[in-house]
Formats: sequence, structure tokens, C-alpha cells
Amino acid sequence: MKLDYSKALLKEDVLSYQERVNEVHQSIFDGTCAGNDFIGWVRWPFDYDKEEFARIKEVGREIHENADVLLVCGIGGSYLGARSAIEMMKGLYPGDKPEIIYTGNGLSSTYLNQILKHIEGKSVYLNVISKSGTTTETSVAFRIFEQYIEKKYGREEARKRIIATTDKARGTLKNLADRKGYREFVIPDDIGGRYSVFTAVGLIPIAAAGIDIDELMSGCRQAYEDFQDPDLKKNIAYQYAVIRRIKENEGKNVELFVTYEPSMTMIAEWWKQLFGESEGKEGKGIFPASVTFTTDLHSMGQFIQEGTKCLYETVLTLDNPMSDIVFPADPDNLDNMNYLSGKSVDWVNKMACQGTIAAHVDTGKVGNILVSLPDNGPFSYGYMIYFFFRACAMSVLLLGVNPFNQPGVEVYKKNMFKLLGKE
Amino acid sequence: MKLDYSKALLKEDVLSYQERVNEVHQSIFDGTCAGNDFIGWVRWPFDYDKEEFARIKEVGREIHENADVLLVCGIGGSYLGARSAIEMMKGLYPGDKPEIIYTGNGLSSTYLNQILKHIEGKSVYLNVISKSGTTTETSVAFRIFEQYIEKKYGREEARKRIIATTDKARGTLKNLADRKGYREFVIPDDIGGRYSVFTAVGLIPIAAAGIDIDELMSGCRQAYEDFQDPDLKKNIAYQYAVIRRIKENEGKNVELFVTYEPSMTMIAEWWKQLFGESEGKEGKGIFPASVTFTTDLHSMGQFIQEGTKCLYETVLTLDNPMSDIVFPADPDNLDNMNYLSGKSVDWVNKMACQGTIAAHVDTGKVGNILVSLPDNGPFSYGYMIYFFFRACAMSVLLLGVNPFNQPGVEVYKKNMFKLLGKE
Repeated sequence: MKLDYSKALLKEDVLSYQERVNEVHQSIFDGTCAGNDFIGWVRWPFDYDKEEFARIKEVGREIHENADVLLVCGIGGSYLGARSAIEMMKGLYPGDKPEIIYTGNGLSSTYLNQILKHIEGKSVYLNVISKSGTTTETSVAFRIFEQYIEKKYGREEARKRIIATTDKARGTLKNLADRKGYREFVIPDDIGGRYSVFTAVGLIPIAAAGIDIDELMSGCRQAYEDFQDPDLKKNIAYQYAVIRRIKENEGKNVELFVTYEPSMTMIAEWWKQLFGESEGKEGKGIFPASVTFTTDLHSMGQFIQEGTKCLYETVLTLDNPMSDIVFPADPDNLDNMNYLSGKSVDWVNKMACQGTIAAHVDTGKVGNILVSLPDNGPFSYGYMIYFFFRACAMSVLLLGVNPFNQPGVEVYKKNMFKLLGKE
Repeated sequence: MKLDYSKALLKEDVLSYQERVNEVHQSIFDGTCAGNDFIGWVRWPFDYDKEEFARIKEVGREIHENADVLLVCGIGGSYLGARSAIEMMKGLYPGDKPEIIYTGNGLSSTYLNQILKHIEGKSVYLNVISKSGTTTETSVAFRIFEQYIEKKYGREEARKRIIATTDKARGTLKNLADRKGYREFVIPDDIGGRYSVFTAVGLIPIAAAGIDIDELMSGCRQAYEDFQDPDLKKNIAYQYAVIRRIKENEGKNVELFVTYEPSMTMIAEWWKQLFGESEGKEGKGIFPASVTFTTDLHSMGQFIQEGTKCLYETVLTLDNPMSDIVFPADPDNLDNMNYLSGKSVDWVNKMACQGTIAAHVDTGKVGNILVSLPDNGPFSYGYMIYFFFRACAMSVLLLGVNPFNQPGVEVYKKNMFKLLGKE
């Protein structure tokens, strides 16, 4: 993984943060930083439960072999990690089983009805993911699909097909899973939802999709090692953390996350939660937004190029795509496209990317931070995610904000529960 | 359709714009406004070609009856309208044919390869949509899928299965379609891509999905009638236009478009192009962003509630969903959800919406503009789209910007063509 910030700002400006970065780095590792009851993710690449990990691989294999459909029932951090991983590594039309359907992440009756119809006649597994088991969206969908599975397969067989990822000791879902006899996996106490993709929360669906989760863990371990030295000359996670603060000080209040593969759109959604929920507090924070290029060059491109100068871009690219295709020749050449015959489409994508960066930076005066991954595989994914974890924690702590809580999420729930008549 | 801005600003502030609104309204209808060579969309609900409309219905019916897959090959305004309509009216798991796949809207080799595999053994139609026929993304995908169809069905049968929507008289795609003998439909000269969903550009895929396009046109005609009087006391399109300018003057530079159905996420994408591309010029404009609730309350909710006060929300809801579902009872009640038994899930969604609006407005101090549609049907869709057309034109003209060009989109293309070695 590489980071190039030469099209966004000057090296001196980044290096000027070294002292503050050292302090924050120290506070994360001696456990004195804000929100220090939720920093279990820091050493998780080494500290994870190896016995549980083996059980995750086993249940993943079982689902992969037996399910036509896996329903992943969770919201926010309980689905975005898994979905971002699975789409990036498998693509949007993977063409193998199981089909993975994300539910319990909203309250659309239309969506629920359509899925109930869509899964008819198929072999269905369900992974419900909730720390407390009291999240309304997830609980509503879970009861509906749990009853569907029990009715279809009987209670005995349903026990094999429903897997609960929840608190290790208490809570509504934990009690329910105990009573029903579902297989259980743990959401650790000291890891928040948006930092949870390397726990059972993310790993069960990812393993069920047929992805090598050993490689994934290797990737995040390597990233841990690479980001242990806080030296801003080489620590790219901390470089990114600092760049965000400098851009904010320059008056930018929107960060636009750019990908060049539609299968990486959910990486952007995951990233938006990580940064938005970690940083958007006390009236502070950079608004996180995203686009998928080249698609959105034909919708948002005009604004980026010539609109209000409120934003900078973080551009995530792959050196090697999952698969490439040679643009074919055509003797008639009625479309005048023969100048690309024999070229690879991914090369065309890369030229579009280069041309766009030049257009936005040189002509549009929009700073671009370039992040590149070697490929879309599990090692690269694990590495990238841990990169963003560390970058986010550093960046938000530099702002003087606790990156690990989310007090504002409770306000709508409180209002909603009152309207729903919940005691 | 209703608009309620009481949670965003004061009536007096809106009404103070009446004089300027009258002037801009006049300039649109006497054809003296900026960009007046691209205002064909204004009277299009009445002026559209009735003979072509009948041919669109016919080809739509043919595709609907015969295709397993319809490939819609276009980018920006050449796919966002159709996709927003089809997803809103059919949902994300429609469960009928044809499956509609959007291609030619990017340069991902992985995406192209996966679709080639996905359509194997299926009955495939293709609608290619490009005014000039020189758009790289669309041309790359079109050659690949045209060759696929010709190889699979032969040239004779391919002529029936490929439909071209393009310029009426000239251009690369027009010439190609003439030579190959494809059925042709027209992109009018005076209607830009983001205003084109009521032309063949949008209507062919929409009709092919089995949607009643007569109703759709009725909806936009009704909206035309309703927005003819520029009186800000009753013209909700112009109210919305003015509200945006007032919010900008208050220092907000992000407008967040909110929906409560995942099937309406593409409405937000369409809206982002309409406003971003119309307004983002000369260093001006409000940055358009979007979220799908309640899903994204668990990712972006924290920022909206407590982050930087740079934004306001436009919340689009449906009075009646496509389908509803009653939350079931459970004698065991292990999930503690029996307080919702017998309630409709859509009602729960609406309570979540109410609770969220109160949380964001009262506690978060984020202005909310509430837009509600009676349902997700074609009349409502047509009405809503025309509402946004008129609102956008008014809002951007009030800013003193030409809403109908997009000069900034050319910059990346020029760079890209140089890198690709195109003459």
C-alpha cells in the first residue's frame, strides 16, 4: 500500500506535526488517550481468540458449502465491514454461492417483502449481529426471518442455520441465542462497531463468502507492524491523519473518497462511518462524502472541477484489478474506437484516473491524496482497513475529540422509542 | 406531493424572494435565461413526439416480453434517470424479468467480465444511449457487448436486440446505427443529459421494466401545470429553489438528500447530478450529498447530529410504500419486541423518520426540508422529477449561474484522450 500526498500539500507541513503525533501515538499505546475503554482493536491482530477463529472458519465453510443465500442481519458497523470486504474481493456479480443479502439495516417494508419472496425455495442461513440485541432495525428483521426459517425447516434444523454474533455474557440476543441453542460468536467489549470487521462481526460473513480470512488477518498484522514507528517520514497512516487536519485548517470541510471500481463503493461507505462517526462531535469534523469514478465524473465531476472550493479528494486505486479484459478489434470501426484495440480496459481506467487527477489538481485546484493498493485480495484488504483504523484514531485525537464513542446516535433512538410506545 | 419547510426557515424569508423569482420565471418562459439553448425540457411534457412515444411503448413491451436481461449502456444522464425510476417503482429485488444491468457507465474491467459471465445462457437485449457516440465509457462497453450479441445471435437477430438512443441526424452512434440497421430513438438537441429522463433516454428502459410511461408523462404534465404560477405562497418547486439559496446565505455548503427506502437511493444519485452539475460552476454551489435512512443513521447519523454545522437536510418520504408487512407476534418474546406485534413495519419506519427529524432539528440544530410523495408509482415519479427540474433551474438561475451547461466535465476527458493516444 502506498500513499502519495504530493498533489495535496507540502512535506514540511506534514512533518511539522511530528511532536504532536508522537504524543498521541504514546497515548494510544499506554492507554491514556480519550476513549481508552474502546481500544481493543489496536492489538486485536495479535490478541484475537484463536479458538474462536477456528470456529469461524468452520462455520464459514459450512455456510459456503450449504447455503444458497446467507442473510446478514445487522446495521452500521455490524454489516458495513463485511459488505465492503465481500464486494471488493468477490465483485458485484460474483457468480457463485451463497448469495449474500444484507438485512436488518433499515425499516423498509418493501425491502423485507421482496427478500422474503426472493429467498423462496432456496437454502437459507442467517447470521444475526448485534451487541445488545435491542437495535430496532436488526430485531425487526431478525424476528421475521427467524420465523421464516423455523417455519420452513423446523426448530431443530433452524438451530443449525441461525448463527448469533453478540455479547459474550449478557443482553437480549445473548439470552435468546442461549435459549434457542444457536451457535454464538463474540463481539468484544472493548471494540466499537466501526472497528469490528476483524472480529466475528465481519469474519463470519467474509469466511462464508469463501474468502481466506487467514490472509486477511496477516494483512492487518503487517499493517500493525508497519505503523508502529510514528515517524512521519515513513508512517503513511499518520501522514494521512495529519493531512486531514492540515486540509481542514486550510478551510476544507468536505473530504471526498474516490474509488475506480464499483465493487469498492462499499469501502467508501465503510470509510464514511469510520471517519464520520469517529470525528463528527462537538460541532467539529470534516464531512465525509464519496464518489465512484469514472461513473460519477458524469454526475459530480462538474462540481468537483469548477464548484465551491470546499473539498479535497482521497483517491483509492488498485494496481491490479481482479480481472482484466482486452478491448477487441473491429474491422468496420464504425464506433471509431480502434485506437484502443488490443489495449486492456484496466489500462484505460488507469489513464482516466491519471487524467482526472491532473484535471482536478492542476486545473480545478482540488488537492488529491493518492492511496494505492496492490490488489483486491484479503491481505490488501486487511492491510488497508488497519491503515484507516490507525489513521482515523490519530487524526481524530489530533482534533481533540474522542474517536471511539458515538453519543449522538442515541438521540433519534430515544425519540423513536417514545413514538413507538416502547417502555 | 407536499413540501414543508417549517423545520428549516421562516415563511417571510422565502417570500422575500418573490420579485426575483418572478423575473427568473419570466426569463425561462420567454427564453431569455442563461443557457436558453437547452430549455427544451420545460415544455417537453406537452411537446414530446407522440409517434416516437408509441414506438417506445412498443419496443418496451417487446423487451419486457422477450428479454431475460436488458443491458442499459450509458453514463451520467444517460442512465441515472432510468435507474432511479426503475428501482423506485420496482424495488431492489423485483422478482420479474428482465433483469436490468447498467453498463457503459465506468471502466472497470472486473465489472465487464463479471457481467459477460452473468448473462451467459440468457436472452439479452441492449439499449445503447449516447448523443454523440464518442463517450469512452459507453463506447468501450458497447463494442464488447455488441460483439457478444452478434456472435451469439448472428447479425440479423442482433439487429432486433440492439436499440440505439442517439442524435436524430448526426454523430458516431447515429451513423453506426444507420449502417447496422438498429432501431433508433432520439435525444433532442435542446435537452441536456440530466434533464432527459422523459425522453427516449429514460423511457425505453423504464417501459422495458414494465412501468406505465403514460402515467409517468401525466405526472410531469400535472407538475408543469402546478408550477406555472410563480407565487411563492403556493409554488413548492420555487419554494425549494429559494430555500436552498437562503441556506447557502446562512453559511451551509452541504445539502444532504435523505430517503427512507433503499430502492430510492438512486433518486438521490440522480438528484446529485441534477444539482451538482447544474450549480457547481464559477467556484459556486452547494455540495450535494446523500444518505439512505435508517441504514445510514448508524454511520452518518453521529456527524449529522453533532458534527460541523455545515449542512441542512432535504428529506424525501413516501406516504404509502410499495408493500407493507405486519410485524408478527411471538409467544416466547425472547427478543422483547412484542410491543411492536401487529404494527406495520412501514409505520415503524415512519416513527423512525419522525424521531430522526426531531433529533436533527431540535437537538442537532440542522434545518430539515420535508418533501413527501403519495406513493412510488409512475405518476408520483414523473411529478417529483419535474418538480426538481423546475426547482433546480430556478435555484441555479437565482445564483446567477447557467444551469444547463457543464463545461468542467470536458477537462478530464481532454487529459484522458491525450493519455490514451486518441487523435
